[in-house]
Amino acid sequence: MKGFAMLKIGAVGWIEREKPKPGPIDAIVRPLAVGICTSDMHTVYDGPLGELTFIVGHEAAGEVVEVGSEVKDFKPGDRIVVGAITPDWRTIDVQRGWHQHSGGMLAAFKFTGVKDGVFAEYFHVNDADMNLAHLPNEIPLEMAVMLTDMIPTGFHGVELADIGFGMTVCVIGIGPVGLMSVAGARLRGAGRIIGVGTRPACVEAAKYYGATDIVSYKAGDIAEQVINLTEGQGVDVAIVAGGEKGGEGLSQAIKMTKAGSTISNVAYYSTGETLPIPRNEWGLGMGHKTIKGGVMPAGRYKLDRFIDLVKYNRLDPSKLATHVFHGMENIEKAWYLMKEKPVDLIKSVVIF
Amino acid sequence: MKGFAMLKIGAVGWIEREKPKPGPIDAIVRPLAVGICTSDMHTVYDGPLGELTFIVGHEAAGEVVEVGSEVKDFKPGDRIVVGAITPDWRTIDVQRGWHQHSGGMLAAFKFTGVKDGVFAEYFHVNDADMNLAHLPNEIPLEMAVMLTDMIPTGFHGVELADIGFGMTVCVIGIGPVGLMSVAGARLRGAGRIIGVGTRPACVEAAKYYGATDIVSYKAGDIAEQVINLTEGQGVDVAIVAGGEKGGEGLSQAIKMTKAGSTISNVAYYSTGETLPIPRNEWGLGMGHKTIKGGVMPAGRYKLDRFIDLVKYNRLDPSKLATHVFHGMENIEKAWYLMKEKPVDLIKSVVIF
Amino acid sequence: MKGFAMLKIGAVGWIEREKPKPGPIDAIVRPLAVGICTSDMHTVYDGPLGELTFIVGHEAAGEVVEVGSEVKDFKPGDRIVVGAITPDWRTIDVQRGWHQHSGGMLAAFKFTGVKDGVFAEYFHVNDADMNLAHLPNEIPLEMAVMLTDMIPTGFHGVELADIGFGMTVCVIGIGPVGLMSVAGARLRGAGRIIGVGTRPACVEAAKYYGATDIVSYKAGDIAEQVINLTEGQGVDVAIVAGGEKGGEGLSQAIKMTKAGSTISNVAYYSTGETLPIPRNEWGLGMGHKTIKGGVMPAGRYKLDRFIDLVKYNRLDPSKLATHVFHGMENIEKAWYLMKEKPVDLIKSVVIF
Amino acid sequence: MKGFAMLKIGAVGWIEREKPKPGPIDAIVRPLAVGICTSDMHTVYDGPLGELTFIVGHEAAGEVVEVGSEVKDFKPGDRIVVGAITPDWRTIDVQRGWHQHSGGMLAAFKFTGVKDGVFAEYFHVNDADMNLAHLPNEIPLEMAVMLTDMIPTGFHGVELADIGFGMTVCVIGIGPVGLMSVAGARLRGAGRIIGVGTRPACVEAAKYYGATDIVSYKAGDIAEQVINLTEGQGVDVAIVAGGEKGGEGLSQAIKMTKAGSTISNVAYYSTGETLPIPRNEWGLGMGHKTIKGGVMPAGRYKLDRFIDLVKYNRLDPSKLATHVFHGMENIEKAWYLMKEKPVDLIKSVVIF
Repeated sequence: MKGFAMLKIGAVGWIEREKPKPGPIDAIVRPLAVGICTSDMHTVYDGPLGELTFIVGHEAAGEVVEVGSEVKDFKPGDRIVVGAITPDWRTIDVQRGWHQHSGGMLAAFKFTGVKDGVFAEYFHVNDADMNLAHLPNEIPLEMAVMLTDMIPTGFHGVELADIGFGMTVCVIGIGPVGLMSVAGARLRGAGRIIGVGTRPACVEAAKYYGATDIVSYKAGDIAEQVINLTEGQGVDVAIVAGGEKGGEGLSQAIKMTKAGSTISNVAYYSTGETLPIPRNEWGLGMGHKTIKGGVMPAGRYKLDRFIDLVKYNRLDPSKLATHVFHGMENIEKAWYLMKEKPVDLIKSVVIF
Repeated sequence: MKGFAMLKIGAVGWIEREKPKPGPIDAIVRPLAVGICTSDMHTVYDGPLGELTFIVGHEAAGEVVEVGSEVKDFKPGDRIVVGAITPDWRTIDVQRGWHQHSGGMLAAFKFTGVKDGVFAEYFHVNDADMNLAHLPNEIPLEMAVMLTDMIPTGFHGVELADIGFGMTVCVIGIGPVGLMSVAGARLRGAGRIIGVGTRPACVEAAKYYGATDIVSYKAGDIAEQVINLTEGQGVDVAIVAGGEKGGEGLSQAIKMTKAGSTISNVAYYSTGETLPIPRNEWGLGMGHKTIKGGVMPAGRYKLDRFIDLVKYNRLDPSKLATHVFHGMENIEKAWYLMKEKPVDLIKSVVIF
Repeated sequence: MKGFAMLKIGAVGWIEREKPKPGPIDAIVRPLAVGICTSDMHTVYDGPLGELTFIVGHEAAGEVVEVGSEVKDFKPGDRIVVGAITPDWRTIDVQRGWHQHSGGMLAAFKFTGVKDGVFAEYFHVNDADMNLAHLPNEIPLEMAVMLTDMIPTGFHGVELADIGFGMTVCVIGIGPVGLMSVAGARLRGAGRIIGVGTRPACVEAAKYYGATDIVSYKAGDIAEQVINLTEGQGVDVAIVAGGEKGGEGLSQAIKMTKAGSTISNVAYYSTGETLPIPRNEWGLGMGHKTIKGGVMPAGRYKLDRFIDLVKYNRLDPSKLATHVFHGMENIEKAWYLMKEKPVDLIKSVVIF
Repeated sequence: MKGFAMLKIGAVGWIEREKPKPGPIDAIVRPLAVGICTSDMHTVYDGPLGELTFIVGHEAAGEVVEVGSEVKDFKPGDRIVVGAITPDWRTIDVQRGWHQHSGGMLAAFKFTGVKDGVFAEYFHVNDADMNLAHLPNEIPLEMAVMLTDMIPTGFHGVELADIGFGMTVCVIGIGPVGLMSVAGARLRGAGRIIGVGTRPACVEAAKYYGATDIVSYKAGDIAEQVINLTEGQGVDVAIVAGGEKGGEGLSQAIKMTKAGSTISNVAYYSTGETLPIPRNEWGLGMGHKTIKGGVMPAGRYKLDRFIDLVKYNRLDPSKLATHVFHGMENIEKAWYLMKEKPVDLIKSVVIF
């Protein structure tokens, strides 16, 4: 079968693979729609995982084509979504409460280097009963794709933050993940939501999803701007979904928050030795500004919860899919679009 | 000055009082609008606090007319709201984290029996800097009144519950408090929200505020109905805002929730010796169904947060004020309306 | 093989069974030591689970004699302990965070009625890699047996409670579970610990494990006594490990706690329709007295944590095993001792 | 009156001041015993607060000599302790839950630069009813002094961390604060506790307080040593109470913890622009290693809790006071001892 792969650091292209086979609790899925993710860009062009050749892509809605002998709740023909991470569920890490790090830190990222990903004719899903979710017919594919990474990652920025009703939240970076953090913050009861970003498509979407104020990098230091906007108070929560370069977003987040606050990171740092905590604004170590950062939760239960948010009209992620291609062969076009990031792009999606 | 008072258990009427005077950190407020509360009915007609004579009412927006010498942030002429409970803030209870019980369990309920309430020409507020909040001009009085009790109480039902994104929540009782629990659950990220109630005005409002399903007492046992609706699963969270009689609502809530869930109570039980926990459905003591119950949080910080929710268009409480009277003298009419509860009533409000 | 079984409600005796066989991820274990549990008495003599015939017993240290083909971390000859509950780990309930209720409320209690228990020549353990833990040689069998139920259950009473450093805790019931709640409360940083009980062996052990005060049912109402002892304040946390009859212990716990507190239940209620919440002391529904109750956590990770507590000398559970028998045939004697509860008994253990 | 003061950055000496006077809710206290703190060294010799002249010292047990007209619970002659930080309690920050930052980040540090500290004949305490605690006679002064800063700060390292029963904890830095973190971790239920330090007096005390292993900076990279000790797993929690230079301790803490863990900082960073988060070991931003840091909690309620820990023999802080001087004039000697840190020093205390 054909797949679109990372060939080496900095290079992508089509390769041939054998069609995968399921183990007793696994499934083989044919993609119906896939999304291209900024994190794919980091992995291929920054190379934090080293030289690897594997089929890329980790965002997919699809159709089950084959299941292992022990799979109970899914069968060929089922329309499904699968999380960008697919943990093994029988580990001590899961018993500790950390399915995301089942098998070791970030080891649940199987589609990204552990095995082939989803930009292929077929892909393999470990532990189907635990990692797949049934996709209701009423949810179109462009939305479904967002359930696999953009929604859980953006919303995890919110889950990590401790947002109380009416609090003021700043979301740094309003690409597709940050936009879902904006939407998630509104759905968590935030009052004022300040989005940090510049590109018009993103700014417009941020307002749609609940941003009450927009701050641009172009207008000066963002921490200063946010502190001014809040009359010197700073924000209760800052969610970092951008500003990866040198950890600048994280550093600004720490600067713009109040004593007694949470900084929640869902950005992926692919380069550099260290990320900087500004000593003074961190209260000389004593300011009670808690810094959290973690990869999205996954598994069927969480997928079902996000499906419910869409199904019950709490969230409409369709604004993210600004560029929709048809035909697997257009993955390449969609990929380069994501790489070049034209001003009107939020996210490119390919319907197979 | 004139005030509308509980005269004894079962009786209300107008009385004369001296105009109150502020201590050094207090304020005197002239009501601009007040709300009649179901809890007033409990207090007067069930008599759980015993025989008392005091001016009733604890929901008011108003104008400051006098402040003590040490008040810093408020001055005569300021438009304000004040919480239904007004704690003292310099106590060990506050240091323990329980301003609601500052001075003893429920002792922050000063307007309800400790001193005169707000259905008067003027009323007294202890610790003005800590218990008042400035009311923005853009918030009309009918909404402002809801900030003092209906929103904080209904939302506290949500705060006590541990609602994760996409969870299924049942709100038992969709009077004004329950409606705000519905709205709060949606704003906290619930997926499906099942409202339990019957009166058409309430049902319509529940749908407006986010209920996806309605269950009626008239159609049979509500726990059974909810369990059927959720295909035998039960709900993740039940918020009890009604069914006070014999603790029936609380009992049903325990029956309809999953193992590993939260039952959150904001109902006020004015009669009876005990409230029943159904043994079997509580897992013989081992089902991890956590039962919480507490009075709303108050103070300026919380008031400001709820004001922000209204100001930033996260919440429109205006649907609650179905019956608006003009003129202080109409408190009496508004009171009896609340007592009789006609089918089209959610809440009666009086604009002075 | 031989096993000691519940024959019907109210009757126990020896029965013959086939030696169990492991599935691919399971293990067969030969007991080295077992403990008799009060909950066995409830199950057999109160009959809350109905008429059943099965080998009783759920507390065992043992030696692995056979493993399934997929078991990785255990092999015949390994010395192990296994939790009183043995969940399946690939379920939505586990993804929700509730392994104790994997497969439904309390469904992880496999040894108690779902399949045969441990009072046998051999017993079966589902998912060995997830439910067994290696038993270090330095931990003697009398202690090891306590790791399976008494420690996790008693300590779960503490885990459910929200004990801050220096808080005052009351433990109602100082049988073996309550004693472990006392020990756990001390290890969680409690200041004053009030134990409620009467039998001298238990009182002495309670003091050894950290109780600073003892209150006896015989000296009057225990809530009153505790409130007097604390100069009218009440306690911050009450852990219910006794007083099951009519829910009296739970009711007293609610009465003796402060506004803003936690009542944590690890008692097993085997009879009655409802458990009573005293309305007035629960603050008319508004007192912020949170009521929790749940079965112990299990699985290898938790077992290893409790093993570490013993290994690093944080906890010495050996005081619980007041009556130690040798030889499997003495299970019967140990059983009836537990039924009769002589004054010097805390717990009976049988070394095979 | 006389006081021992910071004169300018790098210089200390005796100065003359007027005896302070209490406001209506304040108290004047005569020290009975004071402790010299490492943070005094940072403030004077690193100068993070800038050029200031004020009486130093923030650790004192004393006797009330005068109270304001509104003070209710304290009177001249009362033996008391007072926290190192003394918040104002009527602020929005307190309502937000952050008394430590009442009036702004770290603004509760009144003794350190906002007003004169405790190394004087008398000192002033704002809000006596909220910031003092009665000192029981059975607690000797050398212990009492530890209740004001060493215990609350060291234990706050533990409070910030999320230690479950039997977890493995590393405490980086085993000076007096770190030793109290060791003691606090044991009292919180940790299993294995690894202390990082070198000086023999500290190593011995660490073992006394509960350390099971000691790692020395001198034997190589501490993160590597800790990871080796734990067979490659890393620790569940790291508490940073040392290694301030360049944030080295914090950085090592992040390196030595598992995915899904807490790093808790109570170190005071007095120099440098930024503190480094190691990118790779922080999981590229996604490792769920939560970084917390905050100043100790204070106020009467917390002081009383720590007093209870000492009173009920949960904690014996007397090992910290290795060097006890008598006579106020010996503050100078005690100060320089703390500055020079001889190998047998943990903490110097002066009894007046």
